Amino acid sequence: MKELIEKIEKYLDEYLPVSYPEEIFESMRYSVLAGGKRLRPIMCLEACKIFGGDVEKAMPTACAFEMLHTQSLIHDDLPCMDNDTYRRGKLTNHKKFSESTAVLTGDALISYGTQLIIEKSELPAETIIKVLKEHAIVAGAYGIIAGQVVDIAMEGKPYDEKILEYIHTHKTADLFKAVLKAGAIIANANEEQLKSMDDFGQKLGFAFQICDDILDEISTFAEMGKTLGKDKKSGKLTYTALFGIEKANCKVNCLLDEACDILEKQKINSKIFDSIINSIREKVK
Amino acid sequence: MKELIEKIEKYLDEYLPVSYPEEIFESMRYSVLAGGKRLRPIMCLEACKIFGGDVEKAMPTACAFEMLHTQSLIHDDLPCMDNDTYRRGKLTNHKKFSESTAVLTGDALISYGTQLIIEKSELPAETIIKVLKEHAIVAGAYGIIAGQVVDIAMEGKPYDEKILEYIHTHKTADLFKAVLKAGAIIANANEEQLKSMDDFGQKLGFAFQICDDILDEISTFAEMGKTLGKDKKSGKLTYTALFGIEKANCKVNCLLDEACDILEKQKINSKIFDSIINSIREKVK
Repeated sequence: MKELIEKIEKYLDEYLPVSYPEEIFESMRYSVLAGGKRLRPIMCLEACKIFGGDVEKAMPTACAFEMLHTQSLIHDDLPCMDNDTYRRGKLTNHKKFSESTAVLTGDALISYGTQLIIEKSELPAETIIKVLKEHAIVAGAYGIIAGQVVDIAMEGKPYDEKILEYIHTHKTADLFKAVLKAGAIIANANEEQLKSMDDFGQKLGFAFQICDDILDEISTFAEMGKTLGKDKKSGKLTYTALFGIEKANCKVNCLLDEACDILEKQKINSKIFDSIINSIREKVK
Repeated sequence: MKELIEKIEKYLDEYLPVSYPEEIFESMRYSVLAGGKRLRPIMCLEACKIFGGDVEKAMPTACAFEMLHTQSLIHDDLPCMDNDTYRRGKLTNHKKFSESTAVLTGDALISYGTQLIIEKSELPAETIIKVLKEHAIVAGAYGIIAGQVVDIAMEGKPYDEKILEYIHTHKTADLFKAVLKAGAIIANANEEQLKSMDDFGQKLGFAFQICDDILDEISTFAEMGKTLGKDKKSGKLTYTALFGIEKANCKVNCLLDEACDILEKQKINSKIFDSIINSIREKVK
């Protein structure tokens, strides 16, 4: 996994050369190269690999999705949204640069991902379009933005499990599904295989987000690199707030079991997927 | 022209149905359907038409570029940028909704344009990719964002004509060039024809922006629908600040003459382009 992360970071670095005006490119690089688990590009490359695709050809797509993920974090951290000061142990983009730069940096990362997929993918035009469609839909008002809008709208309001599942699905699972499907599309996977990635991404993404809710309550700044306990304070909808930590732990394990079942049914044997599943399991046990 | 504007607005309305969560779609609709001259989609459709293309097939692209233009206005109006209260005689997006909604609405409009071009254009895959490339590059750090970044960075600083031309080119002319080229691409225009649209867009866009600088100084709120005189107050780089109104007027007329020459050389006879050129000329005379 470490080698794969290094490879992805090498490409992210290469794909983001500094050009004039330097400030915007340096700001894009600051946030994109700030570390992180690189889960989304890893999943994209792995989905491509397990369906027999050429992993090198999936690299621009994997990196474009990582840039999109970074964009969503930069904008979520803004004063008008979560107003966060730290992310991955470093100052958030608007604290390091400025609010206006942070807005523009996020904007630039959305379309730069599209540009990257078009310019660097050596793939048939039809395949590129299918990948771009996954990228565009998940980036927009039917994807992560839908989750963010409802999350903000529900702050401090009475809520239920259904709304919470909607938010977690769109804010987190949608991107998991999109990267997995994009990788599978590049490998020319069939409809059943694409459906399995969609289902797997839903279970894994939901488990990942509930795990994040739990860690927000029980972890320390040193472990997470960001200010914690904020969800509870702002009256944010979390799985732990709704059901308590014990039930949240159970739910995560249950979702991960279901994710494993999906892989087994498709006879998918992936050390990378296993390792991601286990890393979530270890955090909640 | 009035009929064409009505047609474009009918499509913009149709392309933006309200879905859950309603707030984000209503916010997208609020700003996209707030009126305006619809110059960019008009130019896109006209470029398609003059090179013999099917204008109906250019409609999703024309509307996607109008959404991109709207995105740039919504984010430019934010408190951390120009901090504007009115746009086209109505409250700016963040004043009508909220700052967080305005950020997310802009984000959503970038990728929704991409989605629209992919889903609604009945064009060959190769053509769609070329159009998407124009859309992605102009939206990003090599396009309008480059102009905005330098514009903000130079506020209150000593400046020269070269920097001003850079800002005006990227903030305004780049989008003019992109919509014209996209329309021409849909019509399968050849390299020389594409180059002519690039040159024409540069001259017209630059003239349009200098005209905007002039109007910012001499117009009233009732005429423009936005707060005026702000450029001067904030020490913003404008052509009138650098050279005075008289020289700015001359420059606009000179650029428009050059734009006409480009059309003439290509034997392009367009009432729409003539009308756009004349409407700028009338404002500065």
